[in-house]
Amino acid sequence: MTAIPCVPMLAGFDIGGTNARALLVEPSTGQVLHSSRDGSAGGGPALVAKVLEMVANLERTYGCRVEAIGLGVAGLVSRSGTIHYSPNLPDLIEFPIGPEVEAASRVPVVVGNDATAGAWAEAKFGAGRGADDFIYVALGTGIGTGFVADGRLMTGANGFAGESGHMVVDMDGPAHRTGQRGPWEYFASGTALGRMAREAAQSGAFAKGIKLAGDVASITGYHVAEALVVDNADASAIFDGFCREVARGIANLAVIFDPQLVVVGGGLAEIGTPLKDGTQRWLDRLLLGGEHRPRVEVTLAELGSDSGAIGAALLAAEALSGD
Amino acid sequence: MTAIPCVPMLAGFDIGGTNARALLVEPSTGQVLHSSRDGSAGGGPALVAKVLEMVANLERTYGCRVEAIGLGVAGLVSRSGTIHYSPNLPDLIEFPIGPEVEAASRVPVVVGNDATAGAWAEAKFGAGRGADDFIYVALGTGIGTGFVADGRLMTGANGFAGESGHMVVDMDGPAHRTGQRGPWEYFASGTALGRMAREAAQSGAFAKGIKLAGDVASITGYHVAEALVVDNADASAIFDGFCREVARGIANLAVIFDPQLVVVGGGLAEIGTPLKDGTQRWLDRLLLGGEHRPRVEVTLAELGSDSGAIGAALLAAEALSGD
Repeated sequence: MTAIPCVPMLAGFDIGGTNARALLVEPSTGQVLHSSRDGSAGGGPALVAKVLEMVANLERTYGCRVEAIGLGVAGLVSRSGTIHYSPNLPDLIEFPIGPEVEAASRVPVVVGNDATAGAWAEAKFGAGRGADDFIYVALGTGIGTGFVADGRLMTGANGFAGESGHMVVDMDGPAHRTGQRGPWEYFASGTALGRMAREAAQSGAFAKGIKLAGDVASITGYHVAEALVVDNADASAIFDGFCREVARGIANLAVIFDPQLVVVGGGLAEIGTPLKDGTQRWLDRLLLGGEHRPRVEVTLAELGSDSGAIGAALLAAEALSGD
Repeated sequence: MTAIPCVPMLAGFDIGGTNARALLVEPSTGQVLHSSRDGSAGGGPALVAKVLEMVANLERTYGCRVEAIGLGVAGLVSRSGTIHYSPNLPDLIEFPIGPEVEAASRVPVVVGNDATAGAWAEAKFGAGRGADDFIYVALGTGIGTGFVADGRLMTGANGFAGESGHMVVDMDGPAHRTGQRGPWEYFASGTALGRMAREAAQSGAFAKGIKLAGDVASITGYHVAEALVVDNADASAIFDGFCREVARGIANLAVIFDPQLVVVGGGLAEIGTPLKDGTQRWLDRLLLGGEHRPRVEVTLAELGSDSGAIGAALLAAEALSGD
């Protein structure tokens, strides 16, 4: 192949429980030049090898070397690049993924929380452009959040900020897989939407879901989304209840942060307008003192499922330039 | 009286529902040179007159003019100096206290939330010195909070950040005076401590409180504090339950912010070590992933009830210097 002129390139990764996504990112525009996806299973050393292989593929495809690597990971990741807590990546706990990838790749590596990184990507190149104070909420299997305050990404004392899915909203509520009772994530994640849909189907209030999924136990949030597209009334009722739960947590974060904007991303953002409008309607109702403050606007993320990897690449670029 | 040489002086106010506290503050050290206290009732124009009178008294006592005035107020205060929402100061809602005091005093005036200002005072001259990421929690009649992230005071898009007392922790819980169900403030304010003590006394588990207060209905949080001093076992049990509620909200804020430190202030901080130790013990238990992160330390505020007024004066000084 013909080598094209090389500009500084970054590799951004979003490492989830089952898959790793790799992007080649042009740092000044956030443009994604190439993307690929592969399995992430097998524990630390296997993941290091996988990351290196994916970087090599990106470099081969584009014909130039990456200058830095950013890894976005769901969980508590220290600034030194070790994953300290991650329900989704149990094999990686206490594994120094950052230093290991850096040693093997010989380029600078930055590891950050995926939602924190996603917030930064949306701030720079997505729905948060021009907003100095906003909340990013990624709704997926769980809930991740990131915060931009006064134009700066909030990372916390250890890089652990933004674990709002673990905020308890119902202290005597149901037990969650984290061991907590009633955390926001229990009520407002994609997992929760699936549970709500199965409960509705069980009580005869989501026949469409059974039709789509085959049986009650197979219903997930995707079937609610599918039924919403054809204006199924049961799906609308289930989803309205879900949006209330999403807005409950956002209302808490809004009294704490006073954001001008809430950017909703993650896999569930693909539902689009019903999610935006439903969450906005409930937030308007639930936010205390709402009549005395400018409306907190709910909007959809613009970078979709790329945001975590783009943000990780941006954080790597900033570490490189000493920002 | 003899005029002493004038250095730049600031007047800082903490305006509560019943009283206003005025301090003369030396801005580079935070030293309080003089303080006074007066009633705050009577609505906007009366409060403006009162503030001017108190400033004149400070100036007369110290023999030089103040350069700027900072007003710390419990509630949502916009950057332009208007109080938009305040359950404790209903007569002042939508009153432009900042511009009115500025017009009458002819010195720059900054108005801010009292707990936000208190956090900044603790950051500069109190228990938060040297901590880049900490949470300030003022426990009084209600709960106020302020946040320092990466060394900067978080104020939010409109200056409304830090209203964490309104964070819902029990969504099906009891109705609060704000109209919300189960906000943190309902469970963990001084008002809540009084209610818990009366409930205990009613069920025969706080005889000492009845003895101190005269009857069940007259028991307040102060009687719990008084009984703690003499190691009353009932008071210890009540207070342990109270510390759990305080720690519940702090645990939520800790997963959101990732602070290194929690500074507990407000009137209840006068209880001292039992509050610090009880909150720390419960926070250690309640904070998710606690075994995977550095301990979030609980400490007592150092500036006591002066923090809001000192912080307001500091914010005024910074506005003056264009920081």
